[in-house]
Amino acid sequence: MTPQACLDRVRVVLCRTSHPGNIGAAARAMKTMGLSRLCLVQPLCAVDEVATARAAGADDVLARATTHATLADALAGCVQAVALSARLRDLGPVAVGVREAVVPLLARAASADVALVFGNETSGLANDELQCCQQAVTIPSNPDYSSLNLGAAVQVMAYELRMAAHGGAPPGPATEATPFSSPPAGIDEIERFYAHLERALTHTGFHDPARPRRLLPKLRRLFGRAGLEKDEINILRGILDSIEKPTGPKHAEREPGGK
Amino acid sequence: MTPQACLDRVRVVLCRTSHPGNIGAAARAMKTMGLSRLCLVQPLCAVDEVATARAAGADDVLARATTHATLADALAGCVQAVALSARLRDLGPVAVGVREAVVPLLARAASADVALVFGNETSGLANDELQCCQQAVTIPSNPDYSSLNLGAAVQVMAYELRMAAHGGAPPGPATEATPFSSPPAGIDEIERFYAHLERALTHTGFHDPARPRRLLPKLRRLFGRAGLEKDEINILRGILDSIEKPTGPKHAEREPGGK
Repeated sequence: MTPQACLDRVRVVLCRTSHPGNIGAAARAMKTMGLSRLCLVQPLCAVDEVATARAAGADDVLARATTHATLADALAGCVQAVALSARLRDLGPVAVGVREAVVPLLARAASADVALVFGNETSGLANDELQCCQQAVTIPSNPDYSSLNLGAAVQVMAYELRMAAHGGAPPGPATEATPFSSPPAGIDEIERFYAHLERALTHTGFHDPARPRRLLPKLRRLFGRAGLEKDEINILRGILDSIEKPTGPKHAEREPGGK
Repeated sequence: MTPQACLDRVRVVLCRTSHPGNIGAAARAMKTMGLSRLCLVQPLCAVDEVATARAAGADDVLARATTHATLADALAGCVQAVALSARLRDLGPVAVGVREAVVPLLARAASADVALVFGNETSGLANDELQCCQQAVTIPSNPDYSSLNLGAAVQVMAYELRMAAHGGAPPGPATEATPFSSPPAGIDEIERFYAHLERALTHTGFHDPARPRRLLPKLRRLFGRAGLEKDEINILRGILDSIEKPTGPKHAEREPGGK
């Protein structure tokens, strides 16, 4: 794939943005670096003339922006989502450095869309939004004043993506192409796996939805680090089915007619 | 010198800026990356409330900004000045890449002040201004739309300076140092988990040791990619225990006395 074809697969997802000027600035920042796919999740403002003014010549990016009711909807069809986070959370996905994140993200873009996810200007990303992402990155900044403007954060990330796309390590086959690696799982498939996992663990009694402790975020963090593939999702869901309806020898003994 | 002491030696020089919002955005971008010395050469606007609003919490940088009649005056005492230029000129200083420029610039900062010089929003730097600089850099951008906003250009350069000052591995999110990451599991613990996994999957009937397919190598590959931590091993083994001896509500119905 050409560098531009990889960049064309990158969605920039802005969650609950408050200020139209920031949406315009993000569009401009994207276009300067060759990104074009802007997704707005529950925007708290209109994409109005203030947005258009700040977008300068990037009004085509604004015009093609899509609006979504949920982050999960905006990520449909993506194989990897990286959350921008100003601070580390207890329960978020694995945090990596910016440069460490962009190269594998572009490698993933060889198979399907990927996303960078930005939160609200004041409150950042909500925990449930963070849980939809497989990685988190924090732009290195002054510990006494880490308040990057939203457009500035989009600019830095888009710049790093462009540098990586055109840089030393050209995106090619996925990082660990072993003989039996399969394409990466889509985020929607992964979400269905997590829902199934929760049901199965409730079934065995390991998980108590009334007292969740932090079990599910911890498991999301683990599997998010691995980067699940389609075949692996099939295996894991087969395992979950077999937990819910065991067919093994011991169960056969206990429940002679059971399948 | 500490990274911060180097960054304290960097002047950001804005020549003939037209829009107060851009001066404010530049101040904010600087402060987020630990830069503090803003110099305005023949500004075409006032540093007014629009500037202050865009500076957000970086109004201290605005308040300490110095104003100069000429670029030469703003560069007095500097040992190196790098011009930001949207295009290459016939007669400009040597053009280098952004990352190529920032490392020697910071090395120079060990002896005295250095400067990054930005031109007017529309016309860029004049030829005589370029001649005051020893190097020129162009931020890589989309050839069809290279129009970075001034604040965004300052943000990218300040970010690169911070990254270089902290040696490319800035203090920030160390690779997996999230607050709840636990130490990596030992190989022996991991092997005991795999043995337990095989038993549990045999128990449910998903795995048939007589016809193993390639199930276990595939699961090893998945968990190997994640890099399991000690706490995660405990969770996973707890799950395996609960598969072998379910205590959940459905099992309680089926096996009233079961624990």
